[in-house]
Amino acid sequence: MKFCNARTRALDPYTPGEQPRIENLVKLNTNENPYPPSPRAIEAMRAAVGEGLRLYPDPESVELRRAVAKRHNVSLEQVFVGNGSDEVLAFAVAALADPGLGMRFFDITYSFYPVYAQLMGIPAHVIALNDDLTVPIEKCFGNDSMLLFPNPNAPTSLALPLEAVRLMVESNPDHAVVVDEAYVEFGAQSAVELVNGYENLLVIRTLSKSHALAGLRVGYAVGSAGIIEGLNRVKNSFNSYPLDRIAQAGATAALLDEDYLLECSGRIQKTRAKALRDLRALGFDCPEALGNFLFARHPQKGGRELFAALRAQGVLVRRFDKPRIGEYLRISIGTDEQMQRLIEALQRALGEG
Amino acid sequence: MKFCNARTRALDPYTPGEQPRIENLVKLNTNENPYPPSPRAIEAMRAAVGEGLRLYPDPESVELRRAVAKRHNVSLEQVFVGNGSDEVLAFAVAALADPGLGMRFFDITYSFYPVYAQLMGIPAHVIALNDDLTVPIEKCFGNDSMLLFPNPNAPTSLALPLEAVRLMVESNPDHAVVVDEAYVEFGAQSAVELVNGYENLLVIRTLSKSHALAGLRVGYAVGSAGIIEGLNRVKNSFNSYPLDRIAQAGATAALLDEDYLLECSGRIQKTRAKALRDLRALGFDCPEALGNFLFARHPQKGGRELFAALRAQGVLVRRFDKPRIGEYLRISIGTDEQMQRLIEALQRALGEG
Repeated sequence: MKFCNARTRALDPYTPGEQPRIENLVKLNTNENPYPPSPRAIEAMRAAVGEGLRLYPDPESVELRRAVAKRHNVSLEQVFVGNGSDEVLAFAVAALADPGLGMRFFDITYSFYPVYAQLMGIPAHVIALNDDLTVPIEKCFGNDSMLLFPNPNAPTSLALPLEAVRLMVESNPDHAVVVDEAYVEFGAQSAVELVNGYENLLVIRTLSKSHALAGLRVGYAVGSAGIIEGLNRVKNSFNSYPLDRIAQAGATAALLDEDYLLECSGRIQKTRAKALRDLRALGFDCPEALGNFLFARHPQKGGRELFAALRAQGVLVRRFDKPRIGEYLRISIGTDEQMQRLIEALQRALGEG
Repeated sequence: MKFCNARTRALDPYTPGEQPRIENLVKLNTNENPYPPSPRAIEAMRAAVGEGLRLYPDPESVELRRAVAKRHNVSLEQVFVGNGSDEVLAFAVAALADPGLGMRFFDITYSFYPVYAQLMGIPAHVIALNDDLTVPIEKCFGNDSMLLFPNPNAPTSLALPLEAVRLMVESNPDHAVVVDEAYVEFGAQSAVELVNGYENLLVIRTLSKSHALAGLRVGYAVGSAGIIEGLNRVKNSFNSYPLDRIAQAGATAALLDEDYLLECSGRIQKTRAKALRDLRALGFDCPEALGNFLFARHPQKGGRELFAALRAQGVLVRRFDKPRIGEYLRISIGTDEQMQRLIEALQRALGEG
């Protein structure tokens, strides 16, 4: 990396889950939705593919932001949109985290957070989860810096109740509290209704999971107009047009099709409940999950071994080679048929052991 | 902007050209291509709109990078792709500019460069263009920091010959030289053929102008494997998937359809030659342009006045309210009919004066 600066040479980037091209693979490794996107979204994207692509998109994504504002009952000035929630998170850290104060996140959390901190030179203050991987809520009170956490948490799939989030926001009146709700639409309680009451709260969402649009790259944030202005400044100092015309059109239509969202989310929650029972029946330690994924370990068989045994049978899950959670598998909720194949593959893996 | 950090509060973001929704407007303000994208690109995007969008895109954009590599006769490891060349430029500044050394660019150049420098805390060393807006090449030799310039330059549309660029690259062996070739495919000489000879050279391109895909947001960079690795590290510390599935498919097809590119570019160059003659016949001072836009001023009528007179007649051009160039209009090359409407509107504007 000659010609690159020292910070770049020191970076340890995020590694996304594999996107392998294997026929007949049961792909349960990146929390994708097993169902297709809304037919209305597909229709809107088809209509956007054409001659109009010679023109720049709306840099302010007004139609899309209007759909978000309508959905969450906030004003246009309270909505920011970006190229996936990863980009929205990056802009939030850039705008809100103070290099002199640092930022707070859990030791077990979305593994992109420490990467943002490193990229932007923000000292990280790590809050260790309890032994059972629940959040030590009282350690999140009265912070001296920005707090960022997913709810439900990743990769544990454990959710905090709204009241706990509210207390965390209320007890940090001088610092931003950012709640990453990538997985909230599978049964957890959202904090988005609190944004009008707390100026320091920012809620971030993605269309990747619940709207089945991981391939389109759209995420958004809802918060006070002041915080949103900060995000806009950073975005407009980085890339004026992160959302293309097709993505804006598709995301707008998807957000307006709430019935479809609820239907798919309901099916996934049903499948999740059955998969949880099946895993426990196999002896797995698997806490009650509220994301579209389960986080499970087996007392007799290690995570690395199980991961490999599944992969050999064409079932791909995710495992994090990290302290405290190395024995766990993170298993996305697929269709009933896919989960059946997973359970059968696990039975064989455990039977062999 | 309560809760935002000091750097964010101090930012002075880039302002993109307007994207107004006015019927029958002659839109010559953002250097869009007046012709539609390649029919093959349209077809590829149509095929990508569907159920597959529930899955993440390829985070490494291998197919697209392969198309870039093929086009420029380099290896896959020498190609980086991003969400428009603005994002690629942002990553290049983040990876290559050293906060201790700063970066060099012209006083009259793409106005996003100083914004990147500000966002990333990079001191700016400004090289003043000559009085006739040409580049003082000798001032670009032997720099002590990264050098970034567009060729052709924006908003002047003046291009440097390949040999001048080569000398600039050769005389800065210890620092990156980044050539922003957003407008190179309208008749200027590209430096991309030099990348195998000079490890410090990075060439950045966009599909927005020459490929008529401003609405799709795809740009790329070609350089040494070491520099490209640095860009990848920054990108993967910021957003793993900046290019959605449809954008990857459309851009790949567009790049492989070189005949279409050459045909559209040829038409634009012909229209440009006539518009240049017409403007000069109206008394405009308008240098020989090699981008898909002209940069012109009139000795009798100010830039602000001309801009307003055109706008009142439904013709939108761009004017930069900045030192040295406030009297100029930047006029994108549209169709022959659009340029005829521009010339007629200018005749009326000058007749009124």
